[in-house]
Amino acid sequence: MAQYSDLSKEELISLKSELEKKYEEIKSLGLKLDMSRGKPNKAQLDLSNEVLDVFNSKSDVKSVDGTDTRNYGLLLGIDEARQLFAELMDVPMKNTVIFGTASLTIMYDYIAQCMMFGCGDEPWVKQGKIKFLCPAPGYDRHFSILEHFGIEMITVKMLDDGPDMDTIEELVKDSSVKGAFCVPKYSNPDGITFSDEVVRRFAALKPAAKDFRVIWDNAYIVHDINDTPDELLNIFDVAKEYGSEDMFIEVCSTSKISFAGAGVSALAASDKNVKDILARLTIQVISHDKMNQLRHARYFKNLDGIKAHMKKHAEILKPKFDAVTEGFSREFDGTGIAHWKKPNGGYFVSLYVMNGCAKRVGELCKDAGLTLTTVGATYPYGIDPDDSNIRIAPSFPDVDELEKAVELLAVCVKLAAVEKLLNN
Amino acid sequence: MAQYSDLSKEELISLKSELEKKYEEIKSLGLKLDMSRGKPNKAQLDLSNEVLDVFNSKSDVKSVDGTDTRNYGLLLGIDEARQLFAELMDVPMKNTVIFGTASLTIMYDYIAQCMMFGCGDEPWVKQGKIKFLCPAPGYDRHFSILEHFGIEMITVKMLDDGPDMDTIEELVKDSSVKGAFCVPKYSNPDGITFSDEVVRRFAALKPAAKDFRVIWDNAYIVHDINDTPDELLNIFDVAKEYGSEDMFIEVCSTSKISFAGAGVSALAASDKNVKDILARLTIQVISHDKMNQLRHARYFKNLDGIKAHMKKHAEILKPKFDAVTEGFSREFDGTGIAHWKKPNGGYFVSLYVMNGCAKRVGELCKDAGLTLTTVGATYPYGIDPDDSNIRIAPSFPDVDELEKAVELLAVCVKLAAVEKLLNN
Repeated sequence: MAQYSDLSKEELISLKSELEKKYEEIKSLGLKLDMSRGKPNKAQLDLSNEVLDVFNSKSDVKSVDGTDTRNYGLLLGIDEARQLFAELMDVPMKNTVIFGTASLTIMYDYIAQCMMFGCGDEPWVKQGKIKFLCPAPGYDRHFSILEHFGIEMITVKMLDDGPDMDTIEELVKDSSVKGAFCVPKYSNPDGITFSDEVVRRFAALKPAAKDFRVIWDNAYIVHDINDTPDELLNIFDVAKEYGSEDMFIEVCSTSKISFAGAGVSALAASDKNVKDILARLTIQVISHDKMNQLRHARYFKNLDGIKAHMKKHAEILKPKFDAVTEGFSREFDGTGIAHWKKPNGGYFVSLYVMNGCAKRVGELCKDAGLTLTTVGATYPYGIDPDDSNIRIAPSFPDVDELEKAVELLAVCVKLAAVEKLLNN
Repeated sequence: MAQYSDLSKEELISLKSELEKKYEEIKSLGLKLDMSRGKPNKAQLDLSNEVLDVFNSKSDVKSVDGTDTRNYGLLLGIDEARQLFAELMDVPMKNTVIFGTASLTIMYDYIAQCMMFGCGDEPWVKQGKIKFLCPAPGYDRHFSILEHFGIEMITVKMLDDGPDMDTIEELVKDSSVKGAFCVPKYSNPDGITFSDEVVRRFAALKPAAKDFRVIWDNAYIVHDINDTPDELLNIFDVAKEYGSEDMFIEVCSTSKISFAGAGVSALAASDKNVKDILARLTIQVISHDKMNQLRHARYFKNLDGIKAHMKKHAEILKPKFDAVTEGFSREFDGTGIAHWKKPNGGYFVSLYVMNGCAKRVGELCKDAGLTLTTVGATYPYGIDPDDSNIRIAPSFPDVDELEKAVELLAVCVKLAAVEKLLNN
């Protein structure tokens, strides 16, 4: 296929009319396609149905220490759930805390706690304008939390092996910079796993702010989709070398292991941070849902149990990811108008279209019945400086829907590119 | 039995030595009794075991609107759970929001939201010293939330039909007074239900602060223990007459209906407040545990289902409450050293011992193996101005344990009274 930038004006005009025709054809089909949300599909949810059979009205529902999980108690979680998450995050059990269904809530609450009560210095709310580093493209809900609390977001470019650490090392010299949000493995949306060097440079940071916190959102910690999974260094192992354990708050959940709507979430943190979090939790809740913890701990048993289960997820997800990335290759190879990465795990494919075209692509797709993640949402304040990134979530639709969606998306990406080139 | 205040010094000395002997005898038994925690007993938890059979791996787990409860979505809760709580709190479904396991968390989060973002005026955190009204004795965890956020607590006396409204009407003229915490039905610990007049005077309040909020913690909304239950006016019905609906945030949960450690909690509020809460929730969580909502909604079906279930709880609880109140009558009638109310529901019996004696009673009990709720905890800052109130939680121990506990407690109350009278 020809590089679009090499095409003459006449060729572009002809291509445009061809694409418009194709676009109108597809539009007339009245499709209703959705690649916007990173949510598991029915087959994935079915994989965990037996979690619901772990116990019933006749069963013993005591946790290993003898606590009746139906009653109050065990603020930090039942031992078997703490042990399971300790294995998953590869930290000691004493450094884990089990929460409710959503790691998003853990992150929200942690930021809220820092705002109201601080973490080693004055409450953030009393320190005037404070800032957070936001590797981008990134997870829109991280940015929403920061915006909600009025924390200024500084966009940091994502490179091929993680955030631009040169920039981060420079920015943390400003004591009003209080932290960063990261998805270190299979990042949302790029699917990038931080290299050992990036993890080390995070651990080695010497921020001017003594209350600097990195929210290490390990959402896709065991979410490989093929046989060449990425490996992420354990941040707490490395942080120990630098004495910077207090700087990291790691979270994860079973939302995309068991049930997105009824899973279990957990946090890993240093002794000091667990102590501070516990002081808040004591006021905030009597105990989280221990029966759901017990269901999960008894079903998955240990890390091997989780890993075996995740292989079944991978079998379902791989054809979907392939449909998207192979479709992209078929449509865009040689055109020079789009690039993307083929991730080894996670929930997204991150498509970069020609600069200045992403919003237009979003409009065209919407008008033809394809819902995409709001263009720009992957950047702080919803502003993609290049207007280029489009987050594709292949997990929910069927493969044939994905193929249709990719075909339509490709027409829109090409049409937007041609329009752009003709207007330049 | 003789009024202790009528006894001569000699009679008191003789009584003291008799009581000390009895105390040492009981102490030597090495008892381990606990009347400290308002937690359900095993038989109560067993009542709800069939909640666990509502569905299993083979079941349809779609909510009435077709949503797969295993997946993300429905931030406000599934319709059937909202409908159930709407019936329970007697409010329209649109005014309900379903949360996680604990209403305590709803209250904490609501206060946190007011602190950070305000509710109709500047954020509370930016308004300098703010204050809350605390009818007392009351629920220690309400006071802990206020203390945690640095909100000054003003103790308001509980009268026989609810808080002293004359005092409250006076105090709300101060614009730094931002709200009140209440347990309007079967109050913790007195078991008092607010009279119609008290509810009306709450609804009619005209606080100087335009961001005044009453947290209406309806924890014992259907928790009758006998056939002469109290009736509480519906606060939102009355508030409508005064246009003060925005002033009230009502919460309740199934913690003491189904499982204390794995129930469902809910909030009722005005349209405006639901909108404000939703704006925060959108940032804080993707959705609460919809499968647990579905379990509860399908099991209890409707308010009649809940009421029938609560009759079974009452059958278990009534003999326990009787053991305590009948024991108190047997031990204290005619002595003039203690008084209490026989509640028609809730989780506590509130014992008032001779002024200046409660702490001493707590010590004596502890040394002899009986754990009570920390004396003073029922008041703001843990300070009972009269040092008189002792909260008794009869739900967890067996009847024979309760009888032993009451016997020991009575010896301690009498001994403390005699010591006090001899020292005067």
